[in-house]
Amino acid sequence: MTQAFPSWRKRTAAPPHSESLRNAPLQLFLSLKGIQSPRVLTWLACIPVALVGLGLFNLSAKAAELPELTPAFLANNLFLLLSAVLVIFMNAGFAMVEAGLCRQKNAVNILAKNLIVFALAVTAYWFIGYKIMYNADWVIPGWLKFGGLFFDPSVTPEMITEGKLVPSVDFLFQAAFAGTAATIVSGLVAERIKFAPFVIFSLILVGVLYPISGSWQWNVGEGWLNKLGFIDFAGSSVVHSFGAWSGLVGAIILGPRIGKFINDKPQALPGHNLAIATLGCLILWIGWYGFNPGSWLSMAPEVPYIAVTTTLGGAAGGIAGTLTSQLMGGKPDLTMTINGILAGLVGITAGCDAYSMPSAWVVGFIAGVLVVFSVMIIDSLKIDDPVGAFSVHGTCGIWATLAVGLFNKDKGLLTGHGFNQLGIQIIGVLAFALFSILASWILWSIIGAFYNGIRVTEPEEAEGLDIGEHGMEAYPDFASTR
Amino acid sequence: MTQAFPSWRKRTAAPPHSESLRNAPLQLFLSLKGIQSPRVLTWLACIPVALVGLGLFNLSAKAAELPELTPAFLANNLFLLLSAVLVIFMNAGFAMVEAGLCRQKNAVNILAKNLIVFALAVTAYWFIGYKIMYNADWVIPGWLKFGGLFFDPSVTPEMITEGKLVPSVDFLFQAAFAGTAATIVSGLVAERIKFAPFVIFSLILVGVLYPISGSWQWNVGEGWLNKLGFIDFAGSSVVHSFGAWSGLVGAIILGPRIGKFINDKPQALPGHNLAIATLGCLILWIGWYGFNPGSWLSMAPEVPYIAVTTTLGGAAGGIAGTLTSQLMGGKPDLTMTINGILAGLVGITAGCDAYSMPSAWVVGFIAGVLVVFSVMIIDSLKIDDPVGAFSVHGTCGIWATLAVGLFNKDKGLLTGHGFNQLGIQIIGVLAFALFSILASWILWSIIGAFYNGIRVTEPEEAEGLDIGEHGMEAYPDFASTR
Amino acid sequence: MTQAFPSWRKRTAAPPHSESLRNAPLQLFLSLKGIQSPRVLTWLACIPVALVGLGLFNLSAKAAELPELTPAFLANNLFLLLSAVLVIFMNAGFAMVEAGLCRQKNAVNILAKNLIVFALAVTAYWFIGYKIMYNADWVIPGWLKFGGLFFDPSVTPEMITEGKLVPSVDFLFQAAFAGTAATIVSGLVAERIKFAPFVIFSLILVGVLYPISGSWQWNVGEGWLNKLGFIDFAGSSVVHSFGAWSGLVGAIILGPRIGKFINDKPQALPGHNLAIATLGCLILWIGWYGFNPGSWLSMAPEVPYIAVTTTLGGAAGGIAGTLTSQLMGGKPDLTMTINGILAGLVGITAGCDAYSMPSAWVVGFIAGVLVVFSVMIIDSLKIDDPVGAFSVHGTCGIWATLAVGLFNKDKGLLTGHGFNQLGIQIIGVLAFALFSILASWILWSIIGAFYNGIRVTEPEEAEGLDIGEHGMEAYPDFASTR
Repeated sequence: MTQAFPSWRKRTAAPPHSESLRNAPLQLFLSLKGIQSPRVLTWLACIPVALVGLGLFNLSAKAAELPELTPAFLANNLFLLLSAVLVIFMNAGFAMVEAGLCRQKNAVNILAKNLIVFALAVTAYWFIGYKIMYNADWVIPGWLKFGGLFFDPSVTPEMITEGKLVPSVDFLFQAAFAGTAATIVSGLVAERIKFAPFVIFSLILVGVLYPISGSWQWNVGEGWLNKLGFIDFAGSSVVHSFGAWSGLVGAIILGPRIGKFINDKPQALPGHNLAIATLGCLILWIGWYGFNPGSWLSMAPEVPYIAVTTTLGGAAGGIAGTLTSQLMGGKPDLTMTINGILAGLVGITAGCDAYSMPSAWVVGFIAGVLVVFSVMIIDSLKIDDPVGAFSVHGTCGIWATLAVGLFNKDKGLLTGHGFNQLGIQIIGVLAFALFSILASWILWSIIGAFYNGIRVTEPEEAEGLDIGEHGMEAYPDFASTR
Repeated sequence: MTQAFPSWRKRTAAPPHSESLRNAPLQLFLSLKGIQSPRVLTWLACIPVALVGLGLFNLSAKAAELPELTPAFLANNLFLLLSAVLVIFMNAGFAMVEAGLCRQKNAVNILAKNLIVFALAVTAYWFIGYKIMYNADWVIPGWLKFGGLFFDPSVTPEMITEGKLVPSVDFLFQAAFAGTAATIVSGLVAERIKFAPFVIFSLILVGVLYPISGSWQWNVGEGWLNKLGFIDFAGSSVVHSFGAWSGLVGAIILGPRIGKFINDKPQALPGHNLAIATLGCLILWIGWYGFNPGSWLSMAPEVPYIAVTTTLGGAAGGIAGTLTSQLMGGKPDLTMTINGILAGLVGITAGCDAYSMPSAWVVGFIAGVLVVFSVMIIDSLKIDDPVGAFSVHGTCGIWATLAVGLFNKDKGLLTGHGFNQLGIQIIGVLAFALFSILASWILWSIIGAFYNGIRVTEPEEAEGLDIGEHGMEAYPDFASTR
Repeated sequence: MTQAFPSWRKRTAAPPHSESLRNAPLQLFLSLKGIQSPRVLTWLACIPVALVGLGLFNLSAKAAELPELTPAFLANNLFLLLSAVLVIFMNAGFAMVEAGLCRQKNAVNILAKNLIVFALAVTAYWFIGYKIMYNADWVIPGWLKFGGLFFDPSVTPEMITEGKLVPSVDFLFQAAFAGTAATIVSGLVAERIKFAPFVIFSLILVGVLYPISGSWQWNVGEGWLNKLGFIDFAGSSVVHSFGAWSGLVGAIILGPRIGKFINDKPQALPGHNLAIATLGCLILWIGWYGFNPGSWLSMAPEVPYIAVTTTLGGAAGGIAGTLTSQLMGGKPDLTMTINGILAGLVGITAGCDAYSMPSAWVVGFIAGVLVVFSVMIIDSLKIDDPVGAFSVHGTCGIWATLAVGLFNKDKGLLTGHGFNQLGIQIIGVLAFALFSILASWILWSIIGAFYNGIRVTEPEEAEGLDIGEHGMEAYPDFASTR
């Protein structure tokens, strides 16, 4: 076994995370806030010097003599690392689906939002979110954690002998999930939101809001929802419906795009590039093999089974979306195949570990039917969701959560175990909905107050956000029909 | 070792796959067939209720006390899971290559076909195909298997102690392969086939035809071709040429696209988006690292060597395609670089485990030369293969299979082992060709009879299938030159 | 453990790499050079016959009875195989970023270059490069290796018992790295270089130049730079700045594109497809999880930590690029988010194994600031770098290398370890710069002499290289604005 540790690992005593250090990054953040003109760049030069003083560059992992690596340690950490990479790849999928389903004149804006949001999400989650969600102390037991910044990446001998995940890989996996929640918001507020307010909202969503409600369920044995018996295996509620509700509030506050409703009738504003939208859908499908199987958090014998139920859910959702769109509109609609697949994948996510294969297919199929009707209902409510993000992640996130109460092998109504679990699932759905709606409404409002509203001006929206917000076009060499 | 099994695993007695259950999904399928108008949606609501009655949601894996996970079990299952993910990713590659090499007015149609076909393929293969190919009893020994639906995903202690694959991961890997065969067909019939006939053809191809001939070779020690000594390591014949022949029959029945042959001379109908076609080629290259190394079915010391021969084959094919197109046309043709790479990858697939590295490069190089000439020959035969799918998968699939008889280290003619293996390889090539041509001709004809022909009308074809079949455009914001 | 070795593995005596065989491929190469007209294709047919005579198809791995596979062997080889796949995937990322940031009329050319260069890189590196870099004897100790072609893929019992990498997986990983260096060049010389000279330059760069300087550092304990104590963990200098200097020389020799500088003022020639450029950036990000963690060369407990520092570096770079472009230009520039992320990833590459997490973020952030200023400086020097490749890979490759001297936990200036390491890092930066500039200047000049200059004619450049070099368009169905 090549166990050539770098020299910093061999140090016998490394500076621990002292309390004084924990507050240091806050000062960095406050000084960054002051950036308004080029002259402030001078300040940037001082930051490294300040950080040296604070010893942040010397922060290092606790040293320990490590035993020989066990098979379970090797397999579990490799498995979760690769799962994290697949989930991070989902950013490419979301970017392509959302950009492809929006109009050409706003493509740069969507792409820029998706790209910067992942950078910000990782930073915010590393800075504070991961600790709120998992690694700090409960301030309000079961409801709120807090305490310091960063996390300790030290590898202990126990992790190796017991085949546990190292902190770094767990962080990366969870950070990738956190980024997903923010990306969902992006689709709902597309084509009309100012760039800076969206960026700030995402930062706080990932750094604070998502970790708070996430800790209710995914602090196994401690979060109140988890203790209640709520089941959400890979995050249909924790991630998908949470993000969808936040985005829906944004969409409602923003109001519909110009031209979306004429005489109260919803108009089609078709996406500009279905090739990249299709690519994005397939990238997301691939990414889900990190999202769902990875959520088992170890390379257990059950992991491939979860990959199978995930596949069946996505496939059934795609078939259902296509069939339903054919039945309703007379022709198979490619965007409904795409949204059907994503709906099926969201739909299977909450219970993918404990469905029979026929259940998995049926749950995905129902999600694919629901997403088409949901798009129509959202339209009829005069809410403008440009890419159908609420229908995919919200409606089907809720369906996924309830489906656990129906189809779970050991606790579902339809498998003969009564209404108990279904009741708990309803409580969970409501908890995430309420928290997400309330918290994001407050947050959107505060940000809106600072920015004189979060919506771009009418002329800018008509011209396209690419010119208004970014001063550039996505396809300058192509002649446009608009 | 974190071996926290879900509660359903701990059950000591789980309902076995009884014979009565096995026929239940058939009834579901029959009821789905009736969907023709919205009112049928009411029927959909009854399905879950029916399934409850049949106990399908309670189907679960057999329970067993599992021993500690062995290194081989962990590594092999993780390896094949990731290989399956890479092969599934090939759907994105095929979708981008095929869409990119077709005209803009048919882009939605190609994308929709590639997307829905994978959903259908997985479903059909799960429903029936996997059992026909691997897991049922021989009805005609060596030639035809049958017996029930679904497969049993139970993990047994022996799988763990002996480092075997769990059924779920094997299914996923094989299902991804099955999907590939259908995707190849899509390229050959592009730009002129009706949507529904193609979808139904794919469903039956993956569910029935591909598994039948696949079982001849990949039921090691039982299939007649395998017993004969036929070698097709990762499926140049089993998957690629099989799919290519089926598609060729479709292309012949359909006839060439309007404008493809003017005064008997083939016309260039150039692809609309070479950026995504190039991307698709590279995605396929990546996917082949699941396709070929994964076909070893365990994380053996030979696996990385297979990845190397695969790489050399693809690289040599790309070089050859580029050089040959330069020699024939005076300029390096990007589409021939793309097709050359794919040709090299198909070419190496049948024997990638048992070539010397120079052999691998030469086999790939010859494939890259052949693909260019094959395109010219297909053209001269007045067959219209819009994306060169037969040349890549058919011609080079055949070449790949024969190349085993020439270059295999232990059995090849050029390595000094006589004509014996080459003869067997020729039999295999003919077997897959005959079966695929015959079966798909019958199938295309039956479907054509139901749909009053499988080709769209002339006006629809001229306008583009995107409007005719789907009522939408792939790039509505871009001005077109056609 | 399924250890079903193919029959060729079981052979007890395999032909060794004899000296006579080693020169054989050279003759193949010389005969290939003669290709100028279709009649030469006849010669191609003779090659296989010649190769049979030389016994190249019989080359095979040394046989050995292999012991049971150890956990470390399984995990390390699987880990590096997947890392290699991720690095190879970076070709798709580079192709999309470079094509997207160039103009439509040159898209085919960029795509073709990126595609064929990987095919050539793998071939050249297999043919000769890998031996020069790692596997041959020192001709000038510490400076130059040479001796024969190919490498021996044999797996020995020691590799298994000691958990070492098999030669095939190490080759594949290193070949993927070599390809990266060539791809960087492609961006710098884009939109004005002749196809053939570029292809030949890349072939020699990957086959000879890159392996020579690479051996200085990555032959641990033998290369002169490595013995000096130079640190470049995953190749910010060895790969990125090396490739960037070679490309910069090409860009200087070529001169700027028509219309890039008008009255000495740099003009914006915006990229034609920011959707694929964004996709490419995210693919590269994913690929970096093979590039950096894979460079540890075993599945050690440190690997996930390297993935975390890599993530933080990329995220901080993206944030910095966006902020800096906003400060300098008033609006967040998507191309600077893209280049900022890539800058952060290059910036973290040299020292990603030995930074604290705050250091990683700061190093990436500074890279993201630097890339924006570097673009302006390159512009002010009247050098035309169409996609900002020197700023990303050169400037930030240098920064990355120096940053090790500042931030390395055990040797950095800012972590309290004095100027010593920083001095060594400066020597390394200069060594790679001098060698790359000198060698590539000579090489570009020789190639230019053969081809009557490496730049296309003015009319061809004005019309676009797609028509001139390839006779085709990337998007023929779309109306152009130019």
